[in-house]
Amino acid sequence: MRDSTGFIAATFTKYLTDKALVSQQHVLELTEDLVIKEFEKGATVLSEGQICHHVFFVESGLLRLFSIDDDGKEHVLQFAPENWFISDRGSVFFNQPSHFFIDCVEDSRVVLLDQAFFERASNLSPEFRNYNEYLLQNHIRHLQNRIDLLIGAQAEKRYLDFVHLYPDVLMRVPQWMVASYLGITPESLSRVRKELAKRNSK
Amino acid sequence: MRDSTGFIAATFTKYLTDKALVSQQHVLELTEDLVIKEFEKGATVLSEGQICHHVFFVESGLLRLFSIDDDGKEHVLQFAPENWFISDRGSVFFNQPSHFFIDCVEDSRVVLLDQAFFERASNLSPEFRNYNEYLLQNHIRHLQNRIDLLIGAQAEKRYLDFVHLYPDVLMRVPQWMVASYLGITPESLSRVRKELAKRNSK
Repeated sequence: MRDSTGFIAATFTKYLTDKALVSQQHVLELTEDLVIKEFEKGATVLSEGQICHHVFFVESGLLRLFSIDDDGKEHVLQFAPENWFISDRGSVFFNQPSHFFIDCVEDSRVVLLDQAFFERASNLSPEFRNYNEYLLQNHIRHLQNRIDLLIGAQAEKRYLDFVHLYPDVLMRVPQWMVASYLGITPESLSRVRKELAKRNSK
Repeated sequence: MRDSTGFIAATFTKYLTDKALVSQQHVLELTEDLVIKEFEKGATVLSEGQICHHVFFVESGLLRLFSIDDDGKEHVLQFAPENWFISDRGSVFFNQPSHFFIDCVEDSRVVLLDQAFFERASNLSPEFRNYNEYLLQNHIRHLQNRIDLLIGAQAEKRYLDFVHLYPDVLMRVPQWMVASYLGITPESLSRVRKELAKRNSK
């Protein structure tokens, strides 16, 4: 599992070992044929209309999943810093053209995992299978909470949830992207942050 | 798999056979100990603060998952008519007190599935395991699309998506619940429906 520059996907290997508790032997088998890709900041990884063939594991850098509405406005669905997965699952697992874009907010190194990888890993390693199911359940939990925040919570509560979920992303992305993720205007975000700063300084 | 009145959970059995492609023998093994419960319209199945111990499969009737915000306003996360699953997965699979409520919009019969059932079924039947993973991926796909609609789409597009996802629910729930699901006011919903009706009659 070396890329063209000879680096090993150390983060993904550590992830499989430490988080998913996959055995050393299985990690070796699972990682020997994987493909790693490097992208420059701003590079597009997936465009609307394409079929997404991979789930991307972020070795380093930062990616985002977003849509563009009829007025050309971007809406951020997800950020993915190191150790996160990002993909359009509807496209990967149901072989449908994507409605979404994925691009790189920073220079990034990603591991490309296709559906065959997940099948092979699940058949080889019960630990991987269990962890993958845990990840899916956890993803559903987060998405459900996010929907609850979007339909029922004020901007401040949404913002605090974002800070909790992505503690290190806040300083790495422009404010309009955070506002877009929260479904509020940049002006509202600015007001929320000022209000919180004022309260915290008391 | 008979409830106290002697009925068999025919819908769930058919679901396992026809949708998940579980073998007859495995269906028999999986369904013999299941518990079915009947609820009257308006009955509460889960309250905020409780740990949710089950994923509920709807044999008949209609359930909904919702939250109540600090102002006492209800926000509908999901509807579940016949053949749907409904639960707070964050609570079932992570053993956390729920933020949500589940109640019955109509008189309902539900099959109660706990985490042990999913483990047993996945170990017994590869078909069940595969179908369950498909369901999780599909759920993620729907939730992701819903978030995209909530942050990026106008009320009309959200409404049309709802009609597509829940073709038979529209006539079975009060309008304010639909508006709550869409994250819009009942007045906006009424405007959208009038506008669509006007366009369709031309």
